Amino acid sequence: MTIQLAKNYGFCFGVKRAIKIAEDNQSASTYGPLIHNSKEIDRLKNDFKVGLTEDFTSFKAGDKAIVRTHGIQKKELQELHKNDINVIDATCPYVTKPQEITQEMSEAGYDVIIFGDEKHPEIKGVKSYATYGARVVTSIEELKAMSLKEKIALVSQTTRKVEDYMEIANYLIPRYKEVRVFNTICNATFENQEAVKDISIISDVMIIIGGKNSSNTKQLFSIAKDNCNSSYHIEDENEIDFTWFKDKQSCGVSAGASTPDWIIQNVLNSIKDKINPKSS
Amino acid sequence: MTIQLAKNYGFCFGVKRAIKIAEDNQSASTYGPLIHNSKEIDRLKNDFKVGLTEDFTSFKAGDKAIVRTHGIQKKELQELHKNDINVIDATCPYVTKPQEITQEMSEAGYDVIIFGDEKHPEIKGVKSYATYGARVVTSIEELKAMSLKEKIALVSQTTRKVEDYMEIANYLIPRYKEVRVFNTICNATFENQEAVKDISIISDVMIIIGGKNSSNTKQLFSIAKDNCNSSYHIEDENEIDFTWFKDKQSCGVSAGASTPDWIIQNVLNSIKDKINPKSS
Repeated sequence: MTIQLAKNYGFCFGVKRAIKIAEDNQSASTYGPLIHNSKEIDRLKNDFKVGLTEDFTSFKAGDKAIVRTHGIQKKELQELHKNDINVIDATCPYVTKPQEITQEMSEAGYDVIIFGDEKHPEIKGVKSYATYGARVVTSIEELKAMSLKEKIALVSQTTRKVEDYMEIANYLIPRYKEVRVFNTICNATFENQEAVKDISIISDVMIIIGGKNSSNTKQLFSIAKDNCNSSYHIEDENEIDFTWFKDKQSCGVSAGASTPDWIIQNVLNSIKDKINPKSS
Repeated sequence: MTIQLAKNYGFCFGVKRAIKIAEDNQSASTYGPLIHNSKEIDRLKNDFKVGLTEDFTSFKAGDKAIVRTHGIQKKELQELHKNDINVIDATCPYVTKPQEITQEMSEAGYDVIIFGDEKHPEIKGVKSYATYGARVVTSIEELKAMSLKEKIALVSQTTRKVEDYMEIANYLIPRYKEVRVFNTICNATFENQEAVKDISIISDVMIIIGGKNSSNTKQLFSIAKDNCNSSYHIEDENEIDFTWFKDKQSCGVSAGASTPDWIIQNVLNSIKDKINPKSS
């Protein structure tokens, strides 16, 4: 069986930047997981003493608080500054963008629609910047039930599928006077998705590596499944079931933007060793 | 054979308004045809002494100049005012809107894309409001050859098909940071198009009545043809070829926004008299 990596996969600019910031700030703590990959979080804890807390009130004046790549809510950020916490901002610049757009559009009188997962920390953060509120949707069905102004601003979670975003835009544009569509899907997401599309079409089995709570990994998995029935989403090599590869000729591999190279290597080595013991 | 009119057809708000303005201003002249229907223009000339000139310089101080429903170019309007011409503005308010948007967006630093026919007077007018220029396109192919800014404002000729406009929007949105889509297709156009879609699906033959140079009539004809092979675009009853109705069970009829009721009635009577001599 051949094993092939997607043309683009794994760590994006924002994640690399955040990890560098964390490594440079030993003994700081992140508020919520820095990225959606628990194994990398463990490495930062073990090798760089970077802590993790979900309890906002645990930060005291002088503490170093790292803001996660997904960003946090506007009020929380203001509170940290107010309490003299030393704030180290690792928010991905591609997430800062929809936050800024949401605030500007809300204040300019637009009805702001955010396409994304209401429960995801990125979207909780983005929504909190809407001075006069915003609606979060994942489907046209939700839009149908809404009464909206004639001027709409549309932003997307950075890790969404562009085709799904376009469905929302296509519903809104013919129905409202002005729809201001901001392309806030990040380039790395776009490139990883395109590459997974390409490789999943020509593979008999697809392995997508990444945190189970990672939005962008879930989108990659969804694209892989669309083109290859035998697609699997794993966090690391321990989750591989080697019967997946029985009678398969070609295996495609990709990984989410928060999946470190060392995990990807472990997965590749594990498959090669078991399936192709003689290959390098 | 049954004969059925589309649910919405014919004169729109802007055309009715312009004709009322012309009738109220006897001895005025329109600069270019008031609407794209030569028979109605003849009626205004014969019954209301409303003249027509294509020569801009023929207007002298004190003359009454009627601005056509499609609007004119910004410089020409300024020139008329400067020369103390008595300007009577019959520009459709739905055309004034894209003119205003084009000026505002051009001055706000957007690359303005106008979806429409560069040679149509409406589009010549709209484009003239782009302080820093605008591009007029009818297809994605033309866009592909263009180098554009990251911020794009998109407006449409008021009489275009919404599906064609969405194709342009769908090309631009994933490729640029912000696409501000203005839904400038007028409601009457939209409703007439929907109605033609509905009736052409259930008709054996379709008759679309309107000026051969009328953009909205051409769009209605195009929609009719998509659903009914035996579709015909005529200006009046003299163009009917009665062999069209041979062995047909149902005839659908619609008319463009610049087609007066009296022409539609003549067409209907003509078909009824020849095909169903006993029907009322």
